[in-house]
Amino acid sequence: MKRIRIRVAYDGTAYTGFQKQGDGTAVQDILEAAVFAATGERVRSLGASRTDAGVHARDNILVFDSRHPIPADRWSYALNCHLPEDIVVFHSEIVAADHHPLRQHYKKTYEYHVTQARFPNPLTARYSWWIREVLDVEVMRCAMKKLIGRHDFEAFRGGTHEYKSTVRTIYTADVSQRGEEIILSVTGDGFLYNMVRIIAGTVIYAGKGKFGPDRIDEMLRTRDRLLSGPTAPACGLVLARIEETDNPDNM
Amino acid sequence: MKRIRIRVAYDGTAYTGFQKQGDGTAVQDILEAAVFAATGERVRSLGASRTDAGVHARDNILVFDSRHPIPADRWSYALNCHLPEDIVVFHSEIVAADHHPLRQHYKKTYEYHVTQARFPNPLTARYSWWIREVLDVEVMRCAMKKLIGRHDFEAFRGGTHEYKSTVRTIYTADVSQRGEEIILSVTGDGFLYNMVRIIAGTVIYAGKGKFGPDRIDEMLRTRDRLLSGPTAPACGLVLARIEETDNPDNM
Repeated sequence: MKRIRIRVAYDGTAYTGFQKQGDGTAVQDILEAAVFAATGERVRSLGASRTDAGVHARDNILVFDSRHPIPADRWSYALNCHLPEDIVVFHSEIVAADHHPLRQHYKKTYEYHVTQARFPNPLTARYSWWIREVLDVEVMRCAMKKLIGRHDFEAFRGGTHEYKSTVRTIYTADVSQRGEEIILSVTGDGFLYNMVRIIAGTVIYAGKGKFGPDRIDEMLRTRDRLLSGPTAPACGLVLARIEETDNPDNM
Repeated sequence: MKRIRIRVAYDGTAYTGFQKQGDGTAVQDILEAAVFAATGERVRSLGASRTDAGVHARDNILVFDSRHPIPADRWSYALNCHLPEDIVVFHSEIVAADHHPLRQHYKKTYEYHVTQARFPNPLTARYSWWIREVLDVEVMRCAMKKLIGRHDFEAFRGGTHEYKSTVRTIYTADVSQRGEEIILSVTGDGFLYNMVRIIAGTVIYAGKGKFGPDRIDEMLRTRDRLLSGPTAPACGLVLARIEETDNPDNM
């Protein structure tokens, strides 16, 4: 028995999220079905990031065990034959038998894409949130930078899940602009449910002039979800990168 | 009666091309239906560029006559209410009553998008041609530059349409690269059927090392379609810009 780790990119538009929920419509369901098609094995897999319904990924991780003799670096090819066009496995390797993606120290980078234009752009609509108002990118950048560090992100999380701790570390956070495209990027040791989408909604509110960047400090201090902005739509979010790190406190 | 000119962007994936063919599945059909929904008028419209099935546009032009009192600059809003998400009108104006888009001197810019990567990218697949082989971008740039000028593009056209002339002028042609994305761009006074897709297929063949850039000269001289490369897939092509020009020979 070998433990296989694959890296996968997907267009999340058609799926109910990464993690399976029992109805067969998650990216993980499709990947497990591809493993079955390639090997005849019904595997139970574990993912590194549970992206929401409609969220995309350029890099997510799935781990499963198999007895099949497919060589470590050939799993991508074996699985892609059985996957739809909107899911692609682009890397595969054998990892230690006790490797567990939720216990690994990963550094995750998300991007939130905004199209700031007078009219919606049908060529970016699938992967970007259209904002008609002119955004102040410099204010947005200041607001993003306020998030860097180790903070309690209770004001930036959705859902009713009971976390052991809502403290997370943000290593880098920035905003870039190219023409009508604005990209918010954030790298951290982990993210709460809806956290990046609420960060995006909040920072875009700041960019619209609804409040100044200093208000972010207040949100972090009070932990009050009523102070932060709306949850930005899923389509604009992409899990861009997952990096392994041995010593997360040393970054 | 006023002559209205609208500018429109669309994701061409779902359509049989820009120009209507009688079965209601072209972008022009959808636009005429939106005019009817907004005004109650059945118009006969004229487009500036007949993009193929599956080809996208950031800027195409449609002209039609209407008696409706919608102000010149409000047509975008009036029509977008009745359009699907993959077609957006982003500009409108009144033009002279004898304005005819096919008799205008337009400078058109097309882009052909390529994703050069070991595995397909599900986040660019809708708008880009995936090429697994490593491409020599410098060779591709040399090949593109060979097309600049006034030439007979018989070797770079598909279909059996009888043109009065297959001579066209290319003003600029270049290749740019950003990460795994390679963009071929070409600006000209007009393009033959499939011409940009055959240019893309040919230049990509050069980038794969199948022939040197000098072979382009031979294709232009011999007018032999058998010498040029394959017709690249529609999904990678986008009509990027249409500019009006009074004196096309003076550019």
